[in-house]
Amino acid sequence: MKILNILGSSRKEGNSEILSDYVLNNIDHNKIYLSDKHINPIIDKRHTKEGFSIVEDDYEEILPALFSHNIYIFTTPLYWYGMSGPMKIFFDRWSQYLRDERFDFKEEMSKKKAYVIVTGGANPQIEALPLIQQFKYIFNFVNMEFVDYITGRGNEPGDVKEDQAAISKALLWNKSLKGE
Amino acid sequence: MKILNILGSSRKEGNSEILSDYVLNNIDHNKIYLSDKHINPIIDKRHTKEGFSIVEDDYEEILPALFSHNIYIFTTPLYWYGMSGPMKIFFDRWSQYLRDERFDFKEEMSKKKAYVIVTGGANPQIEALPLIQQFKYIFNFVNMEFVDYITGRGNEPGDVKEDQAAISKALLWNKSLKGE
Amino acid sequence: MKILNILGSSRKEGNSEILSDYVLNNIDHNKIYLSDKHINPIIDKRHTKEGFSIVEDDYEEILPALFSHNIYIFTTPLYWYGMSGPMKIFFDRWSQYLRDERFDFKEEMSKKKAYVIVTGGANPQIEALPLIQQFKYIFNFVNMEFVDYITGRGNEPGDVKEDQAAISKALLWNKSLKGE
Amino acid sequence: MKILNILGSSRKEGNSEILSDYVLNNIDHNKIYLSDKHINPIIDKRHTKEGFSIVEDDYEEILPALFSHNIYIFTTPLYWYGMSGPMKIFFDRWSQYLRDERFDFKEEMSKKKAYVIVTGGANPQIEALPLIQQFKYIFNFVNMEFVDYITGRGNEPGDVKEDQAAISKALLWNKSLKGE
Repeated sequence: MKILNILGSSRKEGNSEILSDYVLNNIDHNKIYLSDKHINPIIDKRHTKEGFSIVEDDYEEILPALFSHNIYIFTTPLYWYGMSGPMKIFFDRWSQYLRDERFDFKEEMSKKKAYVIVTGGANPQIEALPLIQQFKYIFNFVNMEFVDYITGRGNEPGDVKEDQAAISKALLWNKSLKGE
Repeated sequence: MKILNILGSSRKEGNSEILSDYVLNNIDHNKIYLSDKHINPIIDKRHTKEGFSIVEDDYEEILPALFSHNIYIFTTPLYWYGMSGPMKIFFDRWSQYLRDERFDFKEEMSKKKAYVIVTGGANPQIEALPLIQQFKYIFNFVNMEFVDYITGRGNEPGDVKEDQAAISKALLWNKSLKGE
Repeated sequence: MKILNILGSSRKEGNSEILSDYVLNNIDHNKIYLSDKHINPIIDKRHTKEGFSIVEDDYEEILPALFSHNIYIFTTPLYWYGMSGPMKIFFDRWSQYLRDERFDFKEEMSKKKAYVIVTGGANPQIEALPLIQQFKYIFNFVNMEFVDYITGRGNEPGDVKEDQAAISKALLWNKSLKGE
Repeated sequence: MKILNILGSSRKEGNSEILSDYVLNNIDHNKIYLSDKHINPIIDKRHTKEGFSIVEDDYEEILPALFSHNIYIFTTPLYWYGMSGPMKIFFDRWSQYLRDERFDFKEEMSKKKAYVIVTGGANPQIEALPLIQQFKYIFNFVNMEFVDYITGRGNEPGDVKEDQAAISKALLWNKSLKGE
């Protein structure tokens, strides 16, 4: 079991990361901060003769990380009632990799399990629901198991520590991921 | 009445733009192709002392266009069950402009009317619903009227012309926007 | 092709039925007004030893009608952001019929195609979306094809005739169902 | 603070009630089992001259209970991806009471706080989301505060006791409602 935490926030140690760190406490894992990576928006070449060609950006180092882990924890603040822009850019590129001859992307993704952590300021347990449904569609498309999600409340940095329901669920995930 | 069509696709003349052009046929309007613009992802500085500072990218030319039009048509293909990454990057920056002292962004946006056009390959009238709900939340937040939306089906370029329900709704919007 | 229109409204000739009648104009079909039927709420006996027994109410005459038609048009006003109570009572009983030894209910339902017509007063094209998603889950569960849906606006009786987008989509369905 | 638990299940002591009892443990409260009540489906008379008249069924005893409590806990199993039929019948009648001259129903409801507890067999934390959104719309309409919701997993009776995330959230509500 290898865990990869993929973070969409533009800030380090914001509420969404704090909540994820409860989940990952004392568990071996790797993190990818999408805001540290240079990822180009997809150029849709599905309908061109030449098709997609390899894009020389940081995705080439993300791909091996995706393949070598089997549990993904997607962590994003709720930006405008959706995942962060950089995380959306990250997913959009999957359309390219589905057609990449170097690997069978869909087959690889179907072996993974996904957890989702979203934090937002006002009423995330309601306002994040369209995003949760979007994640459900995304994971369904690649036959990835969507294990569960947590929505946490937090506006000012650190606020999420006061969201007891979110913290207690994070601690349950932590125990479960530790195999306890 | 000034109409601004804001397009999120990575391709020109894809299905989402074709459908929008039915709406805009013989109507004066301007277009912004977000894929032609250089827009940085937001750096969240809501909780820093210095706050946001002006970002020198193409948003500085988009802002006057936003303010000088009063009807927005948001056009995006359904990428991974959401708006395109570049359109998400576009919206995320609103968090910055809400705090910009040069204008009252929320007040300006509350005067606008929004239409949404989404096209997708498989079953967009169902699969786009989380995105429609996200748009609803976005427009609510800035008190912008969400007039209506069209979901059109199209995978191969031009397919959407066969979606009669989408086309007929586009033609009704065209008549309505012409004041007929 | 035999068409069954299943109506959930408590009133005859309300907006939801008017809209359905555009779809069914000059097409052979049958109607079931659920408000005319006596249907008991399900008594969940999934976990009792004796299991379900046949309930002697009007569902015994509805069942043959369900089996003998292959296209269902579900018509309901939006009551409190959902289908009408009598239509919900109607669906709840499917849990019983899934376990009825007289027939293979799920297998029968998997051969049917479903259309949905919903009308509501304020903003049905947004406010009906949770209901549309519920219908999607219901039809998925029994592997019934969910062809499409129409949401129409109408508060006062007859209002829906002014909803041109709804009417034009109803007329397209009418042509399609006629095989034109 | 007076708590009213309104239960939609057709069975006593099913998973939804078990989960609610964790919330209500050692807290003074009253329960209404909707399946024990005789409530007629609404007959929509909004558009008739005479309007609604008082319906002589068990709702006449439910109304004073609604008015005399200020916290409602709505408990329902997920039946066909929605609230139970009897609970839907219960809500539909609100359209009548909104027009009842004996009281200002909307004003009364706006003073209440709502909690929602839903249990379902397969994947309720995803499949119940349309229902949660429907509850949100319902409570918004009458300006009732939607405090929070729990979705619990359970198919066989008692299963929900194994859903640790649901139980731990129920216990947090219990503490909070006790004022601890």
